[in-house]
Amino acid sequence: MRVEVLCTGDELLTGLTVDTNSPYFMERLLPLGEQVARTTIVGDVREEILEALLTTSARADAVLVSGGLGPTADDLTAECAAEAAGVPLLESAEALHALEARFARRGILLTPNNRRQALVPKGAEVVLNPNGSAPMFVLTLHRATLFFLPGVPREYRHLVDTEVLPRIERLRGERKDSGFLAFRLLRTVGLPESHLDAKVAPVAKLHPSVTFGFRTQAPENHLKLMARGRSQEAANAALASAERACRDVLGPYIFGQDTQKHAEVIAALLVARGETVALAESCTGGRIADLLTSVSGASAWFPGGAVVYANAMKEAWVGVRGQTLSTHGAVSEPVAAEMAEGVVRATGATWGLSVTGIAGPTGGTAEKPVGTVITALCGPRGTSVQRHRFAGDREQVRTSSAAAALEVLRHALLEPGP
Amino acid sequence: MRVEVLCTGDELLTGLTVDTNSPYFMERLLPLGEQVARTTIVGDVREEILEALLTTSARADAVLVSGGLGPTADDLTAECAAEAAGVPLLESAEALHALEARFARRGILLTPNNRRQALVPKGAEVVLNPNGSAPMFVLTLHRATLFFLPGVPREYRHLVDTEVLPRIERLRGERKDSGFLAFRLLRTVGLPESHLDAKVAPVAKLHPSVTFGFRTQAPENHLKLMARGRSQEAANAALASAERACRDVLGPYIFGQDTQKHAEVIAALLVARGETVALAESCTGGRIADLLTSVSGASAWFPGGAVVYANAMKEAWVGVRGQTLSTHGAVSEPVAAEMAEGVVRATGATWGLSVTGIAGPTGGTAEKPVGTVITALCGPRGTSVQRHRFAGDREQVRTSSAAAALEVLRHALLEPGP
Repeated sequence: MRVEVLCTGDELLTGLTVDTNSPYFMERLLPLGEQVARTTIVGDVREEILEALLTTSARADAVLVSGGLGPTADDLTAECAAEAAGVPLLESAEALHALEARFARRGILLTPNNRRQALVPKGAEVVLNPNGSAPMFVLTLHRATLFFLPGVPREYRHLVDTEVLPRIERLRGERKDSGFLAFRLLRTVGLPESHLDAKVAPVAKLHPSVTFGFRTQAPENHLKLMARGRSQEAANAALASAERACRDVLGPYIFGQDTQKHAEVIAALLVARGETVALAESCTGGRIADLLTSVSGASAWFPGGAVVYANAMKEAWVGVRGQTLSTHGAVSEPVAAEMAEGVVRATGATWGLSVTGIAGPTGGTAEKPVGTVITALCGPRGTSVQRHRFAGDREQVRTSSAAAALEVLRHALLEPGP
Repeated sequence: MRVEVLCTGDELLTGLTVDTNSPYFMERLLPLGEQVARTTIVGDVREEILEALLTTSARADAVLVSGGLGPTADDLTAECAAEAAGVPLLESAEALHALEARFARRGILLTPNNRRQALVPKGAEVVLNPNGSAPMFVLTLHRATLFFLPGVPREYRHLVDTEVLPRIERLRGERKDSGFLAFRLLRTVGLPESHLDAKVAPVAKLHPSVTFGFRTQAPENHLKLMARGRSQEAANAALASAERACRDVLGPYIFGQDTQKHAEVIAALLVARGETVALAESCTGGRIADLLTSVSGASAWFPGGAVVYANAMKEAWVGVRGQTLSTHGAVSEPVAAEMAEGVVRATGATWGLSVTGIAGPTGGTAEKPVGTVITALCGPRGTSVQRHRFAGDREQVRTSSAAAALEVLRHALLEPGP
């Protein structure tokens, strides 16, 4: 089976936007045993889109077409699809109804431009898009089934998961030629990619039927395992063996697997222990609070956090002593410890996690250069403090600091309770 | 002039690797007045590479081909280039010499595989690659000049900057038909994309030499203006005229231009006024603090923020009265107002900005459904409160809430000081 991807949008050809949609689709297509054969990216230009639709549909069995379904004048995909198929555009009553309902719910006026989004090529199957105003549609052209999706990542991803992949699986089921695959993504943090690779290389040699891949998603590094087999059971067994060996060499660097997020893993540990955490952040400036509260239900284990940028707020909100600040400076072990202890006193949380540091680009000194970061954790067994030195720009230092602080907490939560 | 990009590599079709090379080239091509017309990505498959070389070279004036120049068996690009041109592969003495010197410097043995990297199609111009073992080569095929580059980002980028772009500039200079370009990105927030388009459409009609494009980067929508002219001055003048007209119809929805970030614009306003802002966040959970402190130098105008998730912390850190919480509930105008006023009292900041709401997916009621968000701003002229209703999932509600709160602050900062 041949699957191709066709993306439209000037922004993908100017460097303004990186196409992250296609990798999302590609990663999820692999477990079905298929790999994309070609990606074509064209601008918002009628002739380009039309030519690309005709050539891809003459070559492929399935084409995922994305972008150009918006309400604006440079959204040309539906028109070009109709022209390629030699049919007129028709207003889909179903799509229009959904559009009207969506706009009514939001109290926004439906403009004639928006109404254009209900136009689809005659004969196309319309699939309503619960996350946006442009519907998905499916069209058969030459030998290919073409899936037309909006390019907005949230809409695209939902439709890929719920509509495109199941349909490709069905198309594939009608064929008999492909093998079986099994996958695992192991998520690590705190380990540079080259170290991850070096630790895993000997394991890879012992598992030739498993493909080892690496993915960097700062501050995390992910190890991807893909096993092939003549049956699903054989693929699963090869995967399980390779995964065990990887877990042996990587140990606690692995915080989660597949789609698990760092904050979600920590949330689950807190819930299981019936404990809570509060934050006192300086250089991370609320980043850790944002990560933790992105998990639904955070209020059960997160009473709050203080972003104490000014020294006065370190004193007022989390009870750091003026004396400690003046003696040691804001970026120091004693201040980090008092921040963590103070936020436990202020909130009554089981754990108090604090960060203070120099994110840069200014503020560094010879003794405390940019990237110097102190984390502290106050818990039932006392307070521990760690000094780190992170490389990179302000954003990288903040990201690394937040991940390191969360790792301190996660490792403490992995130990037996008091 | 038509420029195309052709990337080879299985890793780009599995989702393991995102193509960040092409955006690098595209961004640097734009200032020369050219935009990539199409990107094609194929795997390490002989027939695919050959077909793509033939079709792109028949269509384009210049093609940047990358990947597949390594020493391993799946590196097929040079072979395919020779086959496409109908010439044999020859060992380049210059490339081999550089290879030998490179390996000798590092004390590594030159394997027969490495020697393959000195093979280039007969007639190709060889350009040595100071950062790697695969040389770049340049080949003329049909109407096109093809630049073959290694896919390793560091090598690719250096060769793009020093070799490819200057050559494209020269090719372009030999033609007389290409004009000059000028760009502006106008950044808006709070305006749906369809409304942005509707407001701008009449302006676009009056400026036919300017291309209007739209880009959604939730919660922002961006308007891209690209003006063409016979001279740089003419392009600049056309751009300035269209930009003025857009600013007239979009007014305060435009918060910044080109690379300016929302938080940076607010930071600049605070610095100019010599004022400070403090935060009391509930449902945004530190997101606004994170955005503001991502700006370097934030300590000059940001004393701190309280992430007051639990009601007890709303009372303890920003002095919300228990009576107000029990009478009106945490998601209410009086609580938002007391949060904003309380954080001004606690920090001494000029402005206190607060957010309380229901991000979901749980916690909604008939009276206060998920997406109900209250923002309040306390400032020198008193306290103002706004109620919002945002659509989408938890992440979207939090993102929209943070942007809306920052807009309340930005608009206040645009008014004359007290």
